[in-house]
Amino acid sequence: MLRYAAPLERVIREFECLPGVGPKSAQRLALHLMRMDPADVQALGEAVLELRGAIRECRDCGNYSVGELCPICDDAVRDKSVLCVVEQPSDLMALERAGEFRGLYHVLGGVLSPLGGVGHEDLRIDELLERVERLQPREVILATSPTVEGDATAEYLRTLLSGGGVVVSRIALGLPVGGDLDYADQVTVARALRGRRPMEE
Amino acid sequence: MLRYAAPLERVIREFECLPGVGPKSAQRLALHLMRMDPADVQALGEAVLELRGAIRECRDCGNYSVGELCPICDDAVRDKSVLCVVEQPSDLMALERAGEFRGLYHVLGGVLSPLGGVGHEDLRIDELLERVERLQPREVILATSPTVEGDATAEYLRTLLSGGGVVVSRIALGLPVGGDLDYADQVTVARALRGRRPMEE
Repeated sequence: MLRYAAPLERVIREFECLPGVGPKSAQRLALHLMRMDPADVQALGEAVLELRGAIRECRDCGNYSVGELCPICDDAVRDKSVLCVVEQPSDLMALERAGEFRGLYHVLGGVLSPLGGVGHEDLRIDELLERVERLQPREVILATSPTVEGDATAEYLRTLLSGGGVVVSRIALGLPVGGDLDYADQVTVARALRGRRPMEE
Repeated sequence: MLRYAAPLERVIREFECLPGVGPKSAQRLALHLMRMDPADVQALGEAVLELRGAIRECRDCGNYSVGELCPICDDAVRDKSVLCVVEQPSDLMALERAGEFRGLYHVLGGVLSPLGGVGHEDLRIDELLERVERLQPREVILATSPTVEGDATAEYLRTLLSGGGVVVSRIALGLPVGGDLDYADQVTVARALRGRRPMEE
């Protein structure tokens, strides 16, 4: 039975399908839309509608893009001598948020997973090798997640890339900033110990 | 400077305007839309676009409605002898979620606020009086929030409604279910004490 106006029920149901949005948040969001400037609500609706039609993969890095090249690959200021390999566009965004990396990215589209049926040819690995060949970067940073599959994928890429005169590095593992040693899991603590570095004076 | 594909940036910015959605959640939601079935994304976009055009105030209760009457006022099964007065449609929804109330609602559209410039004529108070006159309910429950302004509004409505042969009640104040007496603020504890009821055998 319908309890609220049908368009409102519909928006609530649609919001409930989004990750991290429960029935209560969905209602709150829908009611917020009812109080917003109608023009802003329209802008939101149109932005959602236009999202999927306009976006494809960047020819070079595989990130989401409108043109043939994504804004990062197309940016002349970015350092083309360092490539950072990530699993997904969301990882690329996490790195961009940190604001530390000024090189280019390469999105694999996942990790190798023999059990999940994901092999070499399912990821953008050949594109990576071709790109390294073409760009001749001095360093390739492997930033796949520190999971079993992410580690295995990084190891696999390292063997493929080694011998080409490029430095292949792996992002550091250790304690999260602000984290408490006491609360960290033992694998993280072990990795943090193994990755220790001499302090500068 | 644009870092991501423009339609993606736009969706992220639009999501960031919603309550409780920070930059990180906005990115996560946008990336989720990129992985969803395009038809579902379109359904979401269209639901948002159609929300505001189709909805108006219910003629009787003031709740959001498509037709002249909202689904609750239009429901023959609801008990027309009890009216529950709330501030906003969101309060109505909170009561509906509880599933306890089977009567009709009346949405005031806010609370009296001399400092905020909200007076009798800015709320749907005349509509309430007219409705009570017409429906002749046996009870009117005042469910404005237990805030200074909500209490004052309830008190104001009580004086307007008294003498008409209708029972005017106020929702109970007390400890939230599952709440710890130890952690409750002193005003709530005092109200819970004052509102104590004899236990049934």
